[in-house]
Amino acid sequence: MLRCTSCGRMYSFDSPYQRCECGEPLELELFNGMYKKKGKRVWERFSEFFPLELDPELSLGEGDTPLTRAKKLSKELGIELYLKNETINPTWSFKDRGTYLGIHRAIQLDFRRIGTVSTGNMAASVAAYGAHSELEVYILVSSTIPEEKIKALAPYGAKIVKVHGDYGELYYRALEIGQKKGIYFINSDDPFRVEGYKSISFEISEEITPDYVIVPTSSGGLFRGIVKGFLEAKNSGLIEKLPRFFVVQAEGCSPICKAFNAGKEKIERFENPHTIAHAIENPYPPSGNAVLRLLKKLNGICTTVTDEEILEAQKILGREGIFVQLASATGIAAVKKLRRKGIIKEGAIVVSILTGSGLKTLRYIKQPKVEECSLQRLEECIG
Amino acid sequence: MLRCTSCGRMYSFDSPYQRCECGEPLELELFNGMYKKKGKRVWERFSEFFPLELDPELSLGEGDTPLTRAKKLSKELGIELYLKNETINPTWSFKDRGTYLGIHRAIQLDFRRIGTVSTGNMAASVAAYGAHSELEVYILVSSTIPEEKIKALAPYGAKIVKVHGDYGELYYRALEIGQKKGIYFINSDDPFRVEGYKSISFEISEEITPDYVIVPTSSGGLFRGIVKGFLEAKNSGLIEKLPRFFVVQAEGCSPICKAFNAGKEKIERFENPHTIAHAIENPYPPSGNAVLRLLKKLNGICTTVTDEEILEAQKILGREGIFVQLASATGIAAVKKLRRKGIIKEGAIVVSILTGSGLKTLRYIKQPKVEECSLQRLEECIG
Repeated sequence: MLRCTSCGRMYSFDSPYQRCECGEPLELELFNGMYKKKGKRVWERFSEFFPLELDPELSLGEGDTPLTRAKKLSKELGIELYLKNETINPTWSFKDRGTYLGIHRAIQLDFRRIGTVSTGNMAASVAAYGAHSELEVYILVSSTIPEEKIKALAPYGAKIVKVHGDYGELYYRALEIGQKKGIYFINSDDPFRVEGYKSISFEISEEITPDYVIVPTSSGGLFRGIVKGFLEAKNSGLIEKLPRFFVVQAEGCSPICKAFNAGKEKIERFENPHTIAHAIENPYPPSGNAVLRLLKKLNGICTTVTDEEILEAQKILGREGIFVQLASATGIAAVKKLRRKGIIKEGAIVVSILTGSGLKTLRYIKQPKVEECSLQRLEECIG
Repeated sequence: MLRCTSCGRMYSFDSPYQRCECGEPLELELFNGMYKKKGKRVWERFSEFFPLELDPELSLGEGDTPLTRAKKLSKELGIELYLKNETINPTWSFKDRGTYLGIHRAIQLDFRRIGTVSTGNMAASVAAYGAHSELEVYILVSSTIPEEKIKALAPYGAKIVKVHGDYGELYYRALEIGQKKGIYFINSDDPFRVEGYKSISFEISEEITPDYVIVPTSSGGLFRGIVKGFLEAKNSGLIEKLPRFFVVQAEGCSPICKAFNAGKEKIERFENPHTIAHAIENPYPPSGNAVLRLLKKLNGICTTVTDEEILEAQKILGREGIFVQLASATGIAAVKKLRRKGIIKEGAIVVSILTGSGLKTLRYIKQPKVEECSLQRLEECIG
């Protein structure tokens, strides 16, 4: 059964419902399975925690990403900081975990056509998994999408439609048209996509029991999946306590933090959004209210960071050996801020989710200093 | 001990030798260890096959990449084609496996400074691992390097020197200066880097026993590592027979194929190299002769593919759900050619190594067809 995250109304598992009539997102109930230590893939070890039998043939090798300790930052901040590196995925972002589940759902419901509404990571992910599974793929992008992002979709051979009009509305319109035309839109907070993201929490829980988990948040799908994953990990005894959850948003587009910090129960459309972290620039996130509810219930925190802080954090992560896209750097900017404010305590075990590869947003990188040298003078140049 | 791949001369393990006095590359002797089925990481399961005790703290999570069956291509070509997807690595290429071993070697020999000579994948890899391990990093690049490639290095904070002069000569000059100045240059065919690449063969051998393995080849380091890995996997009983090895090069820069197919024992500098697959555009590969010897000894094949075939193969891989850089696509172009010629037999189990991510060479991707549509007309546009 699928249950509404707000009003609790139930929907049959066999119908392609993604949102409740009340407008809020649906979710699967909590799973309480048995964790199997054996198994190379997270999908095997946690097979009892997923709503469908997972088929390795549909996989491109998503998940089981490294949890890397940030040596310099841990020392500097007096905490144990771990980076969950989602840049090491088949299309170089966390989206692949959700798409893997979403593809299963589409096939289970007998869809031969899938789609998504996205301007970046999710578009590439759905296009790749659709191609791999021999499904027809429809990628709906906004009219302002930069050329590079379209290029990164080219090899997968999806049908790409550039839609002129309100991008927020497009999300809902796509679901409607999908129902009508037989296209399963695996959008950002599809209930099965959210189930896929749980695997991040499972993998973290296998290695450590974090005190804090920081999640860059746009639509809210990733945050919901991560929280659900930790709830299930705790219920099944894999970890003894829940971490405290932090949502981070870019200051220039922070509808969830704005509502949460004002004590509101509903988000409002964020006017004139502008941030360099485009991957999380969603002014009206479809799971925004669901995230608000989780933050309230679990004593979470919502924090914003500026573009300058994001750029600095990207550099800091590079110095740890990981090159992330700007949206991913928001987590580290937030950790620094929350540690400074004393909200993150000394010695705490902190995990920041690195959502996608820096190669995706090369255009925001400044040329580094390069020394010119002749082969003859090389010894001097090296110094 | 380190042994010369050509004259057999031995060198002490405790000295930083990388090449023999005769000019040819050195290598570690064959390991004959015990394969441990348990262990999440290839480095644990095959710990007895590596020349150093490997430290997880120096790792960024390289290796254990997916081996994905190419569904459409397998059907089309009447073979079982598997793709070893090295794009899913910390800096999105196979280089990370070698760098991981190289970093160990540098630290074992008490170096605090490391470097490399590269224009792309290896530069990013060494810069990342150096940053992670808190070593000083020197990246020597050619004067013709495009701006984008430099940008992708920026976050790691290495010292970048653009060297004007013969790029082939730079390789040898760097090793000399390194010895003098205390910089361990983890160049393309460093003996320890080559040891790291063995892990690719180990992982493949855990899953299947291939009939053919295809390796895009530039300096020769990757090919040497893969062959050594399969030799060790066979010696230790993990696989029953060796695969047949295929080297693939771009037609516009194919010094190894040229020499091999003319029955020569030494490569010659390839004049006027030009190919879109820049990652494998090395006109005078430092392990070229070593590769020739292996091809001869093991009844290998060297084949070339054109730029057109490479571009087509990149698209074909996209349709399997994997977006590779152009150099990686050469393998698939070769498989098609060798199958057509009957050299690869029907029903054969074939593995092609996908060396690096397509995001690294976005500039060669053509804009795909994009349909423009208004939100109002969306239903019609989707069709």
